[in-house]
Amino acid sequence: MSVTHPQGFVAAGVAAGLKSPGKLDMAVVVNEGPEHVAAGVFTTNRVRAASVTWTEQAIADGRIDAVVLNSGGANACTGAQGFADVHQLAEHVAAQLTAAGRETAAGDVAVAQTGLIGVLLPMDIVTAGATAALEAASATGGDAAAEAIRTTDSVSKTAVAAREGWSVGGIAKGAGMLAPGMATMLSVITTDAVIGSATAKAALTEAVAATFNRVDSDGCMSTNDTVLLLANGASGVEPSAEVFAAALAEVSASLSRQLVADAEGSEHDIAVTVENATSEEAAEAVARAVTRSNLFKTAIFGRDPNWGRIVSAAGTVPADVAPYDPTLMDVFVNNIQVCRSLGVGEDRSLVDLSGREVQVRIDLHAGDASATIWTNDLTHDYVHENSAYST
Amino acid sequence: MSVTHPQGFVAAGVAAGLKSPGKLDMAVVVNEGPEHVAAGVFTTNRVRAASVTWTEQAIADGRIDAVVLNSGGANACTGAQGFADVHQLAEHVAAQLTAAGRETAAGDVAVAQTGLIGVLLPMDIVTAGATAALEAASATGGDAAAEAIRTTDSVSKTAVAAREGWSVGGIAKGAGMLAPGMATMLSVITTDAVIGSATAKAALTEAVAATFNRVDSDGCMSTNDTVLLLANGASGVEPSAEVFAAALAEVSASLSRQLVADAEGSEHDIAVTVENATSEEAAEAVARAVTRSNLFKTAIFGRDPNWGRIVSAAGTVPADVAPYDPTLMDVFVNNIQVCRSLGVGEDRSLVDLSGREVQVRIDLHAGDASATIWTNDLTHDYVHENSAYST
Repeated sequence: MSVTHPQGFVAAGVAAGLKSPGKLDMAVVVNEGPEHVAAGVFTTNRVRAASVTWTEQAIADGRIDAVVLNSGGANACTGAQGFADVHQLAEHVAAQLTAAGRETAAGDVAVAQTGLIGVLLPMDIVTAGATAALEAASATGGDAAAEAIRTTDSVSKTAVAAREGWSVGGIAKGAGMLAPGMATMLSVITTDAVIGSATAKAALTEAVAATFNRVDSDGCMSTNDTVLLLANGASGVEPSAEVFAAALAEVSASLSRQLVADAEGSEHDIAVTVENATSEEAAEAVARAVTRSNLFKTAIFGRDPNWGRIVSAAGTVPADVAPYDPTLMDVFVNNIQVCRSLGVGEDRSLVDLSGREVQVRIDLHAGDASATIWTNDLTHDYVHENSAYST
Repeated sequence: MSVTHPQGFVAAGVAAGLKSPGKLDMAVVVNEGPEHVAAGVFTTNRVRAASVTWTEQAIADGRIDAVVLNSGGANACTGAQGFADVHQLAEHVAAQLTAAGRETAAGDVAVAQTGLIGVLLPMDIVTAGATAALEAASATGGDAAAEAIRTTDSVSKTAVAAREGWSVGGIAKGAGMLAPGMATMLSVITTDAVIGSATAKAALTEAVAATFNRVDSDGCMSTNDTVLLLANGASGVEPSAEVFAAALAEVSASLSRQLVADAEGSEHDIAVTVENATSEEAAEAVARAVTRSNLFKTAIFGRDPNWGRIVSAAGTVPADVAPYDPTLMDVFVNNIQVCRSLGVGEDRSLVDLSGREVQVRIDLHAGDASATIWTNDLTHDYVHENSAYST
């Protein structure tokens, strides 16, 4: 049920014809009110899709009535025509909703797109698809919407956090380019809780920082990354900011964990945790250095608990960013201490890397802060998928 | 002839037994004077091999009489015993040289090592190998020394810049982990020019910054990277600082270009040039962001001139690091302008990526500075070599 689990949201996914015939490729999520609170987090890439520019402006006043999404084309690097196309799509959706008795302005319609960069979308197909999606939208359409935004995802991603009388539901897509500032990653999260605009923005920013932004599959950052939160207050329940934030974090953690598990061509999901750093920022910097090391990522693919590559990567972080004494460093791979005080620890053949999940733990012995970054191994299939197909 | 092309240097490469039987694995380069000027540049990794710590101390006074090198073991992450082993090796080489009538102190012997991290070296084999190398050292031994420092290199790397009456010669190894701050990259460069200590240091620092440090094969940085320059003034010729710097830069550019051409599992050598940036630093930052994008590197492997991945990577550089207007960006791949003003340019099928060398040019239209970073494509063989073998 995902985004339609909370009351007062309808959604749909339809086959507009942007992808191969019959494949779902356009989606809508419509907020039926009574409130229309919205918050968004977007890619920090300076090269951004027209839809990101549009939606960031649309959401600036804290209100969004509907989201229209498509796979099959990112509409990035498409210049003035690309932006005009997004504007036209938002006007079309607003006109359709208004004609159906649900008065909406184009400036309250968010647009999110994903697919190949540098190609203009066929707007006749896109507007017809939007019409079809709005006609099909229902209180059971959340999962079809999740299906329609898939690109190279092998499965759709949905999550729900149900509470007493209210809930948070979400959909997401993204299987490659997962990185800080997210990924070619789109997510729409809904709630029927009664929350204010400031609470929505703060909770979303915090949840994204702790979940989607802690996923770093291949170090690349997309032009289209968008996470939207829509709140309509339909439940009449007003949770505290803390209680709401926890439910939102639960949904975004589940969605981001699903993204890691489905990363392009991966065989392992790897959690790199840095402990006893001087600050969370320092811990995060060291963890990110390790998750970006291709040598580390290929070693895990080869089921080799190569701690030399882990400490080499950790050592590239400047001392002013992460103060620690390298000679004190301990490294555990799946709980086997393969490196003790920067020297040989237990026999590395004790490490079992046959499972999908790998836990790497680095103890810096410098403070009491910690952070975890998720990544994947670097495999033949990653190279194959990303060299054989344009994305 | 490489390091023995300049007068007054002898060298050798021998099979000590650190690698498989019969393979050259230890080398010496001995400066016979009359001067013993030396300069070095070392990894900036905070996790550094015992030999790096040793050699940085030894060279601090600007004098080195001999360099002993081995493949088959990096002696990194080997703690106090690893450092004691390096000290013992330097004492042994100094004693041998002194016994042969060439008085040398251990503190004037540099040590450079490469191979697996976290393993102590068998010191009986290492000291016997050093003895054999010193006995074999001759004025024609430079190329054997280049051979002995190979690890996964498929060929040895040597270069000479000959001038009127004097020359600069060099050897290097490194086929993976090439990165800023160099690589598991060892290089020894010799000259018989008459140059002072300050000139040697300045010229080496400048040459490394413009050549070895502009090679970024896989974004990883080694614990052992070492570049040494030895000058003995045996030619009696004293070139100007500029003339000497140009000859040194020629040798280091040749060696670093050979490293790129031999990077593990690569099919393409890729030069990413960023033009019309506000500063060289800005140009370098944008070029490095592109050379570190796995999506870009796999696209080139797939012979796909995917400019969307190029501009996406360029867009990740913060505006304070590289000020430019993304909407003005042009991208050329092998001289075909595939992206014009962040939009579609010429037909990408015009780009021929069948050759080994690929030229990517990004015009930022922001200033007049430029920089080039060399990298390689990301291939199945890269994943294979780095997942199947521990290094």
